[in-house]
Amino acid sequence: MAISSFHPPQRTLMGPGPSDVSARVLAALARPTLGHLDPAFIGMMDELKRLLQYAFQTENAMTFAVSAPGSAGMECCFVNLLEPGDKVIVCQNGVFGGRMKENIERCGGIPVLVEDPWGRAVDPDKVEAAFGANPDAKFLAFVHAETSTGACSDAQTLCAIAKRYGALTIVDAVTSLGGSPLKVDEWGIDAIYSGSQKCLSAPPGLSPVSFSDAAAEVIRQRKTKVQSWFLDLSLVMGYWAGEGKRAYHHTAPVNSLYALHESLVMLQEEGLEASWQRHCDLHQQLKQGLAELGIEFIVPEGDRLPQLNAVTIPAGVDDAAVRAALLADYNLEIGAGLGALAGKVWRIGLMGHAANQRNVDYCVAALREVLSR
Amino acid sequence: MAISSFHPPQRTLMGPGPSDVSARVLAALARPTLGHLDPAFIGMMDELKRLLQYAFQTENAMTFAVSAPGSAGMECCFVNLLEPGDKVIVCQNGVFGGRMKENIERCGGIPVLVEDPWGRAVDPDKVEAAFGANPDAKFLAFVHAETSTGACSDAQTLCAIAKRYGALTIVDAVTSLGGSPLKVDEWGIDAIYSGSQKCLSAPPGLSPVSFSDAAAEVIRQRKTKVQSWFLDLSLVMGYWAGEGKRAYHHTAPVNSLYALHESLVMLQEEGLEASWQRHCDLHQQLKQGLAELGIEFIVPEGDRLPQLNAVTIPAGVDDAAVRAALLADYNLEIGAGLGALAGKVWRIGLMGHAANQRNVDYCVAALREVLSR
Repeated sequence: MAISSFHPPQRTLMGPGPSDVSARVLAALARPTLGHLDPAFIGMMDELKRLLQYAFQTENAMTFAVSAPGSAGMECCFVNLLEPGDKVIVCQNGVFGGRMKENIERCGGIPVLVEDPWGRAVDPDKVEAAFGANPDAKFLAFVHAETSTGACSDAQTLCAIAKRYGALTIVDAVTSLGGSPLKVDEWGIDAIYSGSQKCLSAPPGLSPVSFSDAAAEVIRQRKTKVQSWFLDLSLVMGYWAGEGKRAYHHTAPVNSLYALHESLVMLQEEGLEASWQRHCDLHQQLKQGLAELGIEFIVPEGDRLPQLNAVTIPAGVDDAAVRAALLADYNLEIGAGLGALAGKVWRIGLMGHAANQRNVDYCVAALREVLSR
Repeated sequence: MAISSFHPPQRTLMGPGPSDVSARVLAALARPTLGHLDPAFIGMMDELKRLLQYAFQTENAMTFAVSAPGSAGMECCFVNLLEPGDKVIVCQNGVFGGRMKENIERCGGIPVLVEDPWGRAVDPDKVEAAFGANPDAKFLAFVHAETSTGACSDAQTLCAIAKRYGALTIVDAVTSLGGSPLKVDEWGIDAIYSGSQKCLSAPPGLSPVSFSDAAAEVIRQRKTKVQSWFLDLSLVMGYWAGEGKRAYHHTAPVNSLYALHESLVMLQEEGLEASWQRHCDLHQQLKQGLAELGIEFIVPEGDRLPQLNAVTIPAGVDDAAVRAALLADYNLEIGAGLGALAGKVWRIGLMGHAANQRNVDYCVAALREVLSR
């Protein structure tokens, strides 16, 4: 029953994430492990913070990476900001808005649900109406880029509404960070979380987050302890912030942070706007290729994310069989539908390092061949 | 302000963890990323589970790695097992027993504290007395190997006491797993968590855990939802367990799991007992070397962990200056004291891949030289 070393096949990752990780980032991942209090490592953390500030387009001091995947980044935002009884307007137009609602409930918060159809952007008018009916809401929570549907919501407009009602905003940018326009300070986002494995193309396992000064003040003024010790920012920030001396909280995922650092250095080299444009351009190429195959998008053109293309599975086509064939014969991963869209859509990712011409051509050619069998 | 790639120095890691990661494990870490639902990855997860069962010496079906560091593994045990009002006898003989107490409180549990001096094992008589005074306690929580002091407690005896009182046991094995005798099933441990970065010598960021059938039943019978969505085992196990189809919960830290898998393959190749013996043998060598320098252990001989050697800083020696010199001149990391022992002790780790003759000789020689300056 001896188990031997694992050698994964080399896939092309065009699902909803993780996306292809570049050789450069994998090389960074495998550099020698340092202690989590080593001055050399602390220096890298400082750089990582500045790189994340650039990616998020923010000056927020409280900008760092949660030592766990995006779901933990989401939880980090809710458990630190909410106290029992707090009312939160939460928008659901896909799987992840529902996960936000679940988090609110588990913190003892009171969710006010604003629902939109899966595959559509959040409707600002409904949010405005929800605030009108609930002027005591302390927070607005929504998903900027719904990974389950490929719809992009107008974060700037939604944040402006919240501000008019004196509410703070909590935004899911798991799939948008690095891939589409996102301006934390300019748009007035108060708390935001993302993932390392989407448009940043680092390996999965880390969640970049950022908190505005107003959010930081809410955390400082809490009357109750944060229910999670691991995610308690009053403790975590003793490690990530602080001039000079860092207080041990938990052992940071050292090598994963190297990889995130490298992926952000690459983003800085390319330039944020250039990366946004690349995702846009490649999306247009993919759209054209899919149109030739008669494959249609589920999201109206104006609401579409370039990096997550949710398309209708053609009538009579066996969803699982096609994905299995792409994997077996082409080492190509595309994503299945999630939640209410399971079995109905495919999700084709064009994220980060995977957003390139070669991948688009390969994916369209592979789909053409498999669908014609 | 352009930031360039990070190239860490090559240290020798003899602190309280992370420990030196072998080239083999780093190579595994850098293998091509797979999707978290890829059949090839699911196959690796199944192997990883069997390898962890071997390391923990358990048949527990609910054995896997939490997608976050040991502190999250601790929190995973408490949030899933405890419900508000549950009484827990919790032993504190160092930093990490205190962290357990903090977790209990944040879950709404009622901690009954059993205190022992830092640097000593947990006293079974005190635990017996605590159960006598609190026969309604539902859990006993203690640290098997206190990373802050280097003391090893008698987990088998403590678990037997808990069983007599019908209580389940929650055990911190962050520093013991792979490095000293630990037999989950034979000793009757109900919930246990560890870390990837100690005696397994994988990079930091994952927490191996295991739950007995009795613990799993307590989780199934919960009347309240687990307060953490990310750590909720009723959801997590839909991804890690299940024959065939896995339900997406969060995106697994794919590459980090490759590395943990490889480190466990290496443990299996060496053999668990051989690894325990190696840690013991190298500890004896280190003890002899330190004795020649007049450096003394803070833990009585019978309670000492071989892999974590907490020693008194010789009188008149500048703690920080010595550690800084070891780092600067020898690329050698040893650990500072933590909590009540800060400034009073050094913690010299001999963990996993770092527990070898070369490291022992190097450490003793470097200390000799730096202390004689």
